Amino acid sequence: MYIGYSEAETFLRNCKDAVIITHQSPDGDCIGAGFGLKDILAELGIRSRVICSDEFSSRFDFLTNVGAGEEFEPETIIAVDVADTQLMGKYKDIYGDKVQLCIDHHISNRNYAEKTLLRPKATAVCEIIYDLAKFMGVKISRHCAMCLYTGIATDSGCFRYDCTTAEAHEIAAEIKRSYDIDFAEINRNMFEVKTKARMILESKFMELMEEYEDGKIIFAAITLDMMKKIGVSYDEFEGLAPMTVQLEGTEVGILVKEREPGLFKCSFRSANNINVSDICRSIGGGGHAKAAGCSIEGTLDEVRNKLLEITRKAVE
Amino acid sequence: MYIGYSEAETFLRNCKDAVIITHQSPDGDCIGAGFGLKDILAELGIRSRVICSDEFSSRFDFLTNVGAGEEFEPETIIAVDVADTQLMGKYKDIYGDKVQLCIDHHISNRNYAEKTLLRPKATAVCEIIYDLAKFMGVKISRHCAMCLYTGIATDSGCFRYDCTTAEAHEIAAEIKRSYDIDFAEINRNMFEVKTKARMILESKFMELMEEYEDGKIIFAAITLDMMKKIGVSYDEFEGLAPMTVQLEGTEVGILVKEREPGLFKCSFRSANNINVSDICRSIGGGGHAKAAGCSIEGTLDEVRNKLLEITRKAVE
Repeated sequence: MYIGYSEAETFLRNCKDAVIITHQSPDGDCIGAGFGLKDILAELGIRSRVICSDEFSSRFDFLTNVGAGEEFEPETIIAVDVADTQLMGKYKDIYGDKVQLCIDHHISNRNYAEKTLLRPKATAVCEIIYDLAKFMGVKISRHCAMCLYTGIATDSGCFRYDCTTAEAHEIAAEIKRSYDIDFAEINRNMFEVKTKARMILESKFMELMEEYEDGKIIFAAITLDMMKKIGVSYDEFEGLAPMTVQLEGTEVGILVKEREPGLFKCSFRSANNINVSDICRSIGGGGHAKAAGCSIEGTLDEVRNKLLEITRKAVE
Repeated sequence: MYIGYSEAETFLRNCKDAVIITHQSPDGDCIGAGFGLKDILAELGIRSRVICSDEFSSRFDFLTNVGAGEEFEPETIIAVDVADTQLMGKYKDIYGDKVQLCIDHHISNRNYAEKTLLRPKATAVCEIIYDLAKFMGVKISRHCAMCLYTGIATDSGCFRYDCTTAEAHEIAAEIKRSYDIDFAEINRNMFEVKTKARMILESKFMELMEEYEDGKIIFAAITLDMMKKIGVSYDEFEGLAPMTVQLEGTEVGILVKEREPGLFKCSFRSANNINVSDICRSIGGGGHAKAAGCSIEGTLDEVRNKLLEITRKAVE
């Protein structure tokens, strides 16, 4: 059942001993939402614990170092930023069918919870939680403000992406006016600092980029053999797809990674008006107009030829 | 003479045939401020022309394609984002001592104009011009809004840097609510798109980085010989200094570029609390706590040894 702020307030004010579940591979928004909501519940005198199937990266220590919360037998199960119980990882079997309140901004939310506060236009779940706290008149602590700012900033690429709402800017302004926080340091750690492996990988990535149609199409492929040679694993290539459309003049970027021998995961990015979701749908994939993907079997040459053929048509 | 909004309004409403001078090596803020102010003057029925000692990069075509303005004998000279007449380049001799109104946000402004509207805490000159237009009750066109958003976004590193004010976020929110603009596209072109030469250079830069003190200090040097070998010029290394502090765990990054044989220009960056301005001042340079520089003579080995010696002390 979808609910509004008023019902969410009633639920939160009357809940007890809550676990707050975030999604696996946790990012700034689900961590910010989890720990931010924990702060708000604490203001109401309600104890809670933040749980996640994966460990939180040390990059988020400045938010998580308050501790996830004491152990107790939960009476309330809340999920934040979890569109599907599959994303709960090891907690799916324990809590998947017991979620009483889900707060989310994914239009794809599976409506698995008893009550769902869904605002698909929100930049981040942290935006919803900020609004909810204001609606409830609950005090937002400095730590809570840091959590919510971080979630909004990370999910919007620091106010860069299309999903950035006017509300996101308004909340950032309110937080800046009300709290003494080193925002520049948070942003530096979220958007600039890289691991050494990542820096090496990015510097090597350039060599993998192949140009077609005068650079309008960039194709980059990494096979299992190449991963072995460079010394990086499949997972480390996460988040590299945007690099395929960084080059001036590029319209479509394609990143192809060999998941298993002969099976390639393909990520498409569009710089401007070409709808890569259409391209991917035509070969069994899907996604958004500017970011989409598909899986495809074959040798690297077969995969390259097939993808370039379809993409050339779209670019023309 | 420093003036406020009220006097700036009187000046603008009563001026005629204005040239608006931006600084050389023009960036998003001075271009946005120049063309934004031109739009505002046009609303008041006053014709104006935007001039700059250098050409505007094609990255800013979406703002400058309205044209700089017709030719006429100017009666009013306005400077935007120009802290010092030196920065007017070839226009210094013609207009340097004739500027009637300067609108700026640099605390270092030399107060060279007849009247100066200076707001040193503003994120960007575009923030001041937005406020001024609101103060005057002048209509802000869609093109003007694009100009002012671009200036605020670029000068703040898309709301990342310390200089980002709450007002900057509020203006971004107001503009988002009022105009149908593809902000994500502007941000992509300002912050993600790179030339091929730049991409190659960044990928090669990694190889130049030397780690000291367990990576707390990163030293990167580029000699005239090396530039020749890689095939890039001195100027193309502009803006690479931030890369020296991208690595996790790095405290101080030093980028050293050979300007002439035996003369090195050194850029220091601090990731956290080490004041690199102090380091640079001790060897005849200066700057800010997190970004400073100096020039130093010697062989590369001598320069490296000297800089590492001083920096090691600061890091300990």
